[in-house]
Amino acid sequence: MEFSAQQIADFLHGEIIGDNQVKVNNLSKIEEGKPGTLTFLANPKYTHHIYTTQASIVLVNRDFEPEQKINATLIKVDDAYSCLAQLLNLVNQARPEKKGIDKDTYIAASATISQSVYIGAFAYVSENVKVGENVKIYPQVYIGDNVTIGDNTILYPGVKIYHDCVIGKNCIIHAGAVIGADGFGFAPHNGAYVKIAQIGNVIIEDQVEIGANTTIDRATMGSTIVRKGAKLDNLIQVAHNVEIGENTVMAAQVGVAGSTKIGSHCMVGGQVGFAGHITIGDRVNIGAQSGIPNHVSSDTSILGYPAVPAREFARSTVMIKKLPELNQTVKQLQKEIENLKKRLEK
Amino acid sequence: MEFSAQQIADFLHGEIIGDNQVKVNNLSKIEEGKPGTLTFLANPKYTHHIYTTQASIVLVNRDFEPEQKINATLIKVDDAYSCLAQLLNLVNQARPEKKGIDKDTYIAASATISQSVYIGAFAYVSENVKVGENVKIYPQVYIGDNVTIGDNTILYPGVKIYHDCVIGKNCIIHAGAVIGADGFGFAPHNGAYVKIAQIGNVIIEDQVEIGANTTIDRATMGSTIVRKGAKLDNLIQVAHNVEIGENTVMAAQVGVAGSTKIGSHCMVGGQVGFAGHITIGDRVNIGAQSGIPNHVSSDTSILGYPAVPAREFARSTVMIKKLPELNQTVKQLQKEIENLKKRLEK
Amino acid sequence: MEFSAQQIADFLHGEIIGDNQVKVNNLSKIEEGKPGTLTFLANPKYTHHIYTTQASIVLVNRDFEPEQKINATLIKVDDAYSCLAQLLNLVNQARPEKKGIDKDTYIAASATISQSVYIGAFAYVSENVKVGENVKIYPQVYIGDNVTIGDNTILYPGVKIYHDCVIGKNCIIHAGAVIGADGFGFAPHNGAYVKIAQIGNVIIEDQVEIGANTTIDRATMGSTIVRKGAKLDNLIQVAHNVEIGENTVMAAQVGVAGSTKIGSHCMVGGQVGFAGHITIGDRVNIGAQSGIPNHVSSDTSILGYPAVPAREFARSTVMIKKLPELNQTVKQLQKEIENLKKRLEK
Repeated sequence: MEFSAQQIADFLHGEIIGDNQVKVNNLSKIEEGKPGTLTFLANPKYTHHIYTTQASIVLVNRDFEPEQKINATLIKVDDAYSCLAQLLNLVNQARPEKKGIDKDTYIAASATISQSVYIGAFAYVSENVKVGENVKIYPQVYIGDNVTIGDNTILYPGVKIYHDCVIGKNCIIHAGAVIGADGFGFAPHNGAYVKIAQIGNVIIEDQVEIGANTTIDRATMGSTIVRKGAKLDNLIQVAHNVEIGENTVMAAQVGVAGSTKIGSHCMVGGQVGFAGHITIGDRVNIGAQSGIPNHVSSDTSILGYPAVPAREFARSTVMIKKLPELNQTVKQLQKEIENLKKRLEK
Repeated sequence: MEFSAQQIADFLHGEIIGDNQVKVNNLSKIEEGKPGTLTFLANPKYTHHIYTTQASIVLVNRDFEPEQKINATLIKVDDAYSCLAQLLNLVNQARPEKKGIDKDTYIAASATISQSVYIGAFAYVSENVKVGENVKIYPQVYIGDNVTIGDNTILYPGVKIYHDCVIGKNCIIHAGAVIGADGFGFAPHNGAYVKIAQIGNVIIEDQVEIGANTTIDRATMGSTIVRKGAKLDNLIQVAHNVEIGENTVMAAQVGVAGSTKIGSHCMVGGQVGFAGHITIGDRVNIGAQSGIPNHVSSDTSILGYPAVPAREFARSTVMIKKLPELNQTVKQLQKEIENLKKRLEK
Repeated sequence: MEFSAQQIADFLHGEIIGDNQVKVNNLSKIEEGKPGTLTFLANPKYTHHIYTTQASIVLVNRDFEPEQKINATLIKVDDAYSCLAQLLNLVNQARPEKKGIDKDTYIAASATISQSVYIGAFAYVSENVKVGENVKIYPQVYIGDNVTIGDNTILYPGVKIYHDCVIGKNCIIHAGAVIGADGFGFAPHNGAYVKIAQIGNVIIEDQVEIGANTTIDRATMGSTIVRKGAKLDNLIQVAHNVEIGENTVMAAQVGVAGSTKIGSHCMVGGQVGFAGHITIGDRVNIGAQSGIPNHVSSDTSILGYPAVPAREFARSTVMIKKLPELNQTVKQLQKEIENLKKRLEK
């Protein structure tokens, strides 16, 4: 596929500065731009690249005014980043769509499958499963008994969903994610541990994305819940009976211990750990690798191990760096006091 | 399934306070209790919920004396929590049991399979594998050459076990776990790395539970060993030649580097990291996210990065918070000493 | 298979001290050595075990001179560790080789497969895939549209490779690894998040090893790249548009955020986290569990959260331990100054 600057400007309601017939067939980052590709400038930190980029077309915001000559054709739009997102989407949708049911699948007779579904080879759909419209189930997916999958949801290869879980509409679950494995519950008994059966489930609401090899355990009783619009990156651990609020975003390798409730619109950095049985408010920002031992109020930014307000963390970090100096100062003061004492004694 | 308070009290040898004919068909948490469900009260922190819960039946300990009117029927038992565990187990066992061998499986002719086994579709059982009685092998499991699986063990969907590994009796391995991948061993050679072949195996003893997407690498030579009754949560990394002691419990995302030996009855918090070639004693408690660079004696509680005794960690945390204050104090002292010097010079 | 000391010495160009007819059929670690096995002594810390090991043969360096009687037969070689690596390799290669294409596989008609390939049952090879010579694709592997797999590469059971990715020659990818899942990109929009389509790919160059359940996300545009000879352990997260340099080694559970570039010949400890959009030089050593918020120059050793030069980290750790003592000293100084003041006032 190849598009001219004119075609793209028409699609994005943009204004062309330069050659309206130049053609592109791919997208690129501005610092890696090659002839025949379209790139974008949204972050002012990257502005200097626009004067040297080899890309043929650059999307820029309407208020951009070049300070030097630019070789590329510019397309001025209201919001360069969101226009780029539209183009990425367009390219992505041009890929051939997966359709139909492959030959070597296992689909229980009691399962309810819509006509519009894709089910790849070696996928396993158990008893009483309900699969909505336009769902895509890639090869080697496992769906346990009584699971429901909402419309337009995509399960990438090798996703495993245990019995009784509920997956909403328009969700994307990436390869290797495990939804509904047993919560980690044991009762000590004579120096060993007895397993506590985990009879609850996992509920994933609509518009949720879950990363590759992330694990979300079923509740002991009731449900582990990931609410509408939440986005979870790869290799995250969500323990039994946890709740993650609407539109909360978590970077990779975060761990959330049992029964913790996280509010809506939170942003959680990579490798953060949450203790169990705590409550995190709404719109909380948590820096990467932090450890969260206690409740956190809404509208706070925290960081560190254990986590403290971001400003306090910065101050402590500086102070710790200066500790050797502080130590020297105190030693010096000791000497001076000894001197003063001697002088007083004279 | 529906049970009356009388049936449940008879099963648990409990005493009914209230309506012995009220019926329940599910279990719930006391703060989320709905009519038609049974809940329990074991932790005194939750006592206030018993006066408002909508649950129809509450299991309580025999010594519980209400301070207000309770709408629910009470069943008094010796140990409310362990009775709950019994009921959870009962509910869990009521699920239909998986049996027989599905059509689309690969089972090598040289494999030895008991009559009572379940093997789901798309599972792969290699040469010379030995599978014990009542083993359940879910769909898409891979079992490499010469592996042994003990009686009553459950391998959930997508578990991968490499050649020569030994899995004990009554084990549970959750979806996506990988047992016996190569240990991470390379020898530097002319600025690159040469792979050291990993010819050992993994031995999982009896009654071990392993979480979803956890990885346990095979030994370079000899065996990586997880001993009887150990419980490992999700996304844990166990490197080559590690040993994990009996009844040791590890929360999610822990990492154990090569050749480290961890004793029995230890409790390890989430995201803890162990250096390689160290020895951890028995009954050691380690707080979440700790880093363990060196040997640890038995019967200690440690925490932090690098880990120190729990009391010392608490003290350091407080001291670090107070650092800006301490810094101010020292500056004040400097001034006062200068003043004293001046006065002495007069 | 059984070999005599003579056969092994001939193979390794070694010199025998002791019985040249003693036979071994396995390898062992010196502290666990059993009769009928061969072990080695490379690390001087283990020297004392050579006088008590039950192993029948010990490989030692040519300059080794025993201080006591040794029961085992010695074979003196130029480099005991690299000779051991040769023997491990030999044992490993003696395992039966997987060959041919199993019955229950899905191979798209448009895929190009060499004659010498192994493809296990329930593996899925999509449209336009190109598979090189001697590639081994184990059961339950998924290979998406347009993927290329170089000669001699091994994909262990359950590996998932999304469309358009490129895997080099002589690579090893362990079970459950996911290559090419979507990068974690969302644009905020009216309090929710809109997915940014991820149209790039992942390029794995030659001689790369990737651990079990590791995840490497595709680029938003362009490529996420793991360069020649890099070795990644288990459960590592590599985000979109990251580059990892040649012969860089990463221990388990490391996380690298988006667009970060890591140089060549780096050594990264377990559970380290890298912020996004930073650059790490060549030959950088990073201690386990460190957090890397900023650029790092070549040829440095860093450690801690946030990471600092290794020496500075050691000093801070000592200083933090001594904080309670420093605090006491300052309090004592306060008292003494008060005393001095009083004496001056008299």
